[in-house]
Amino acid sequence: MIRRHKGDFTWTDVPILPYKEDGTLFKDITRQTLFEGSEQFGLELRYFEIGPGGHSTLEQHDHEHVVMIIRGTGRVLVGDTVSEIGTNDIVHVPTQTWHQFRATDDSPLGFLCVVKTDRDRPRRPGPEDLADLNTIPVASEFIRF
Amino acid sequence: MIRRHKGDFTWTDVPILPYKEDGTLFKDITRQTLFEGSEQFGLELRYFEIGPGGHSTLEQHDHEHVVMIIRGTGRVLVGDTVSEIGTNDIVHVPTQTWHQFRATDDSPLGFLCVVKTDRDRPRRPGPEDLADLNTIPVASEFIRF
Repeated sequence: MIRRHKGDFTWTDVPILPYKEDGTLFKDITRQTLFEGSEQFGLELRYFEIGPGGHSTLEQHDHEHVVMIIRGTGRVLVGDTVSEIGTNDIVHVPTQTWHQFRATDDSPLGFLCVVKTDRDRPRRPGPEDLADLNTIPVASEFIRF
Repeated sequence: MIRRHKGDFTWTDVPILPYKEDGTLFKDITRQTLFEGSEQFGLELRYFEIGPGGHSTLEQHDHEHVVMIIRGTGRVLVGDTVSEIGTNDIVHVPTQTWHQFRATDDSPLGFLCVVKTDRDRPRRPGPEDLADLNTIPVASEFIRF
């Protein structure tokens, strides 16, 4: 099966969907599922694109992510570290690790994300989590929630 | 963990390795492992690059591939179909399906490939397989073995 790129990070027969529909705080993101998994190969390949100045939800979960940036630039919080990221950089998000992606103000941030089909739901930070994150200056400055 | 792109499809602390070391027929390919899997997340993300005019091994196996082209152009055989492929196209190789990638003569073909860590060894075609493949004109013209 070939899933063909139509240009501008859109693909034939792949709908452009909202990032989430659960009321979680995020800003200006779309989601496209490029590979939906199969019976014996239980993983999904998704493409997320964050518009300039936008961000993903601050969350953690048991399942891991492998992410590859394929468009633009931004920054990412993983655990207690904020890193600049750009095209072709790889990000691994370990289990139960706070993470949030942000696009730079003048550039989108587009990335591939590989996850297992069978995965737990993300958890958002509660007041104690936020108090902990706020003890880390780089995280405190970075997070949006 | 951030694995940083150094430019020209090479990454910090990622060695550029031979594609295979088993004497299989292929031409002008390198392999880089961008994510090596973890205990609970048993998948690998590899980057392969085929030089202009080069090709991968003609093979099949029980495990599946999800591939995304991120550099250049080429063609791919999957089963009985040969398709043109270019940057940002996705290729799914199902279980036990003959496949071979070729770069165009004036361009490299670079692609990400996701596989399970726990996977079977590839099988190369025997005389009967080749006789079958040769009944398919597009495959017969395309394959190198």
